[in-house]
Amino acid sequence: MADKANESVVLSTRVRLARNLKDLPFPNMQSADQAQQVIDRTALALSRSDMKNDFALTYLRANSESENIALIEDHLISPDLVKASQRAAVFINKEKTISIMVGEEDDIRIQAIMNGRSLNEALDLANKADDSIAENETYAFHDTLGYLTACPSNTGTGMRASLMLHLPALTVTHQIEQIGRAVSRLGLTIRGFYGEGSQASGSIYQLSNQVTLGFSENDIVKMLNDTADQIIEREMKARYSIYNSNKTKFGDKLMRSFGMLKYAMSIDSKELYKFWSDLRLAISLGIQTEITNETADKLLSLQPAELSRLAGKAMTPEERDIYRAQCVKNILNEQLP
Amino acid sequence: MADKANESVVLSTRVRLARNLKDLPFPNMQSADQAQQVIDRTALALSRSDMKNDFALTYLRANSESENIALIEDHLISPDLVKASQRAAVFINKEKTISIMVGEEDDIRIQAIMNGRSLNEALDLANKADDSIAENETYAFHDTLGYLTACPSNTGTGMRASLMLHLPALTVTHQIEQIGRAVSRLGLTIRGFYGEGSQASGSIYQLSNQVTLGFSENDIVKMLNDTADQIIEREMKARYSIYNSNKTKFGDKLMRSFGMLKYAMSIDSKELYKFWSDLRLAISLGIQTEITNETADKLLSLQPAELSRLAGKAMTPEERDIYRAQCVKNILNEQLP
Repeated sequence: MADKANESVVLSTRVRLARNLKDLPFPNMQSADQAQQVIDRTALALSRSDMKNDFALTYLRANSESENIALIEDHLISPDLVKASQRAAVFINKEKTISIMVGEEDDIRIQAIMNGRSLNEALDLANKADDSIAENETYAFHDTLGYLTACPSNTGTGMRASLMLHLPALTVTHQIEQIGRAVSRLGLTIRGFYGEGSQASGSIYQLSNQVTLGFSENDIVKMLNDTADQIIEREMKARYSIYNSNKTKFGDKLMRSFGMLKYAMSIDSKELYKFWSDLRLAISLGIQTEITNETADKLLSLQPAELSRLAGKAMTPEERDIYRAQCVKNILNEQLP
Repeated sequence: MADKANESVVLSTRVRLARNLKDLPFPNMQSADQAQQVIDRTALALSRSDMKNDFALTYLRANSESENIALIEDHLISPDLVKASQRAAVFINKEKTISIMVGEEDDIRIQAIMNGRSLNEALDLANKADDSIAENETYAFHDTLGYLTACPSNTGTGMRASLMLHLPALTVTHQIEQIGRAVSRLGLTIRGFYGEGSQASGSIYQLSNQVTLGFSENDIVKMLNDTADQIIEREMKARYSIYNSNKTKFGDKLMRSFGMLKYAMSIDSKELYKFWSDLRLAISLGIQTEITNETADKLLSLQPAELSRLAGKAMTPEERDIYRAQCVKNILNEQLP
């Protein structure tokens, strides 16, 4: 699979490991003291490891609501962690490539996030954090079943690995539904990453493993990689097929979206996804050469809480859309807002 | 009336004088020889005048069809003159500010065209050409009625003076219909300049006198100027009223059209008028400061025959829309195509 196709389709990679400490109930049955104990024991374990200087500990209850939402927008924590915010905490490294949530569904959820297609690297990174804790703590582990988790669907490796894929051509040609059925037979799942229901905002999908039991981490990563190869190939074929059927009409549509990004004075988040998706497509087809994928992807950060943080104030939805349009212009001019 | 408002609303001025030579039937009753006689006598009269070096004579039958259509697009000749192309000719000065059509409905139709609001100057210019012919020829003239014309509606001064007005706010608020009724009571008329029926493409209207008999040229010009003052004032009030009711929403709409002009890869003529109209509005409201009215108005020249001339070849409608989008970009970059 060519690098170009990977860059055109794969936005980012995530690997998440679910772990629980031995001799404690799962979080939903823990007392407040026990919940605090998990945080303290995780902090202590990390402090005794090679990664002792890597992480900053944040108690969610010490954050404002919008600070926590911004962490969700950055995918550093889950909405479920915020629901447990009175007891929950998160360790995040400086590069924001690793977050360790404490007090979600499981005691510990280690997550590694990397740009582009980097399943092996993300797994290595998650494993490194996992090992740092495991050296100094004891996980709930069963010789046959593997890592024990609050929900049986995570038991075994406790791993969920995923690739964020931009699939506009498979979406518009409705091939995505058929692909969804095909990957489910492999123990994988593909679903819209932003937006609700089956309507994937920006045509961004998350391809991940459903099955955690009976396969090694490396088996799962290989399965994901092989499946991603096929999806990427079909997406690229579909892109060129649409483009070649009417270059002017399709190119015109994509460049008009770029004109909107450059000149609109108000952009709501739904539009932002659409324009971003068209920009990404235009880059991949060589229609747009001014903007890089990296710059384009910065646009996806312009979500409500992040915009409030950048503006340094709360905003009405209308003010936010105006501010978003300004930030879009700044990013496209290669200046971070 | 402030200059700014005039520049924002008045695009151009035209004055047309209808004249017929004495002792000849009107064109629709002329033999081919008589039609040629009118051309020869007009040429001779001009050659004996101070303007003898100003004009180039073009026989329409010597032009290609697209060359004649380009002259129509430039408003230098009328579609009716092209219908009579086997017998008709036109004298055009270098600056393209005066055209003298020979063999239209009347023997001679002198037309002066100027940018912006210049009724008196355009009348002076038309009069100068008129005098140049009259010094050396005898017009059909009646002491009581004035200049005699093929159609009685032009008899008297033979003059039709008009202002091209950009009235987007009066269009969208439907005040234009009421204004149409009001001006008709003054012997004036206002109608869409481009496009068919009442739907004025680009919200461009022509305000002109209907009545040619019983008023002097100067009376008519004064009436037009006074009426234009009121229309311009109402248009500017309506613009600010719409803009101030929701600056972001309206500004966003206008700037999105600008984004289309800058980035669309295909633009049809209907869209061009719309985007041009929004650009003009954005300039008048101070939202757009990058582009001048003068540059914006060059976009209006991008009509089918002119595009073929620029491209140096015939084009399909699809090719033309692509080429138009390229020419738009060139004009906006202040480079003539």
